[in-house]
Amino acid sequence: MEKVKFIDLKSCILQENDDTAAEVRKYTKEKNVFLWNIMSSPGSGKTTFITKIIELIGNQYRIGVIEADIESTYDSEKLVKLNVPTVQLRTGGGCHLEACMVMEALKKLPLDDLDIVIVENVGNLVCPAEFDIGADFPMMLLSVPEGEDKAIKYPLMFTVTDALVVTKIDALPFFDFNFDALNINCKKLNSKLKIFSISAKTGENCDQFVEYLLERVNNKIIKI
Amino acid sequence: MEKVKFIDLKSCILQENDDTAAEVRKYTKEKNVFLWNIMSSPGSGKTTFITKIIELIGNQYRIGVIEADIESTYDSEKLVKLNVPTVQLRTGGGCHLEACMVMEALKKLPLDDLDIVIVENVGNLVCPAEFDIGADFPMMLLSVPEGEDKAIKYPLMFTVTDALVVTKIDALPFFDFNFDALNINCKKLNSKLKIFSISAKTGENCDQFVEYLLERVNNKIIKI
Repeated sequence: MEKVKFIDLKSCILQENDDTAAEVRKYTKEKNVFLWNIMSSPGSGKTTFITKIIELIGNQYRIGVIEADIESTYDSEKLVKLNVPTVQLRTGGGCHLEACMVMEALKKLPLDDLDIVIVENVGNLVCPAEFDIGADFPMMLLSVPEGEDKAIKYPLMFTVTDALVVTKIDALPFFDFNFDALNINCKKLNSKLKIFSISAKTGENCDQFVEYLLERVNNKIIKI
Repeated sequence: MEKVKFIDLKSCILQENDDTAAEVRKYTKEKNVFLWNIMSSPGSGKTTFITKIIELIGNQYRIGVIEADIESTYDSEKLVKLNVPTVQLRTGGGCHLEACMVMEALKKLPLDDLDIVIVENVGNLVCPAEFDIGADFPMMLLSVPEGEDKAIKYPLMFTVTDALVVTKIDALPFFDFNFDALNINCKKLNSKLKIFSISAKTGENCDQFVEYLLERVNNKIIKI
């Protein structure tokens, strides 16, 4: 008797996504553009962080943004006001971005006139971690009010990102946040994870992160 | 020529889940237990909120907890210390609970000796909203640091829940949080949504929520 054929749909989807992510990498290399994927829970401060980065390096680097949201153009409207080319991806219920969506968005941006494309992923600490979108720099934010225990409870995100930026440190007097515990738990998951702590609101420590970011950017693109 | 047959896998999964959710409702009715589903982003304070509720009503009502986490038993260990019967569901990467998981967990709890079972869903403002777990009371938390714009950006959660509890109001001096905008946006999505604002840390306003909760509990179960 023949055995039942088993199709692992999840592997199929992830394999297809990985193939498209490789195409995204090839495309941004050709276009001489640095692709940066920012992930976090809802409300960790992704849009505020991106706004601060644009303020700090927008006069040296030409930046475009891909905004992913389930609904609304709430965040992209904020960025358009900064005169930054922005594409809004509406996932319509979808809980994460996939490489094919990013490819579509890239084609709608004026890449020949850009150095860096920032992707603000869907606010979700779980699903986006499963999908490589072909970024040169996958990173995550974790805000002080969320607590340092998130590395224990949502480990995958901490293993697929190169840097963790702890945001809202201006709120530290209000919350118990154990940096030592965070460091220990993160290092167990991802020994190469670079950890920063900043306040995008006050600007505190943002220069340290920017230095690291620009080193990565300049390692990939040839600035015109 | 025959048309291609099309299987909508998502509808299949959701239909199967709805059927099991109905079984969960039947089962908790037989067992005279109130099932309460608490959803939110990571770090909104679900465990702290549950701990506060147990402190406030644990002497009048016999409470059990189902803790859902992707990894770790971090939260359930806190609850076990309170002498509350607790089942840990490890989703192993899964981003939400489904009714079948809750049914399994219910069977591991001493339901004959319980009045209320609290489910702490996976910290995720997106996916858990799609899956009815058969609860008598689906509700959500939103913490002040996350911001009031979440109703615009993650609308489904606000439409499938009966109550929204804004948490961490003790941090209001530190964050811009527009309650008027929240109310307006919520009412557009779900005119019946009951909105509370509390601090589980200081206990502020918790009594108002507890009054509402117990009315719902007493409407379902016959207290022994």
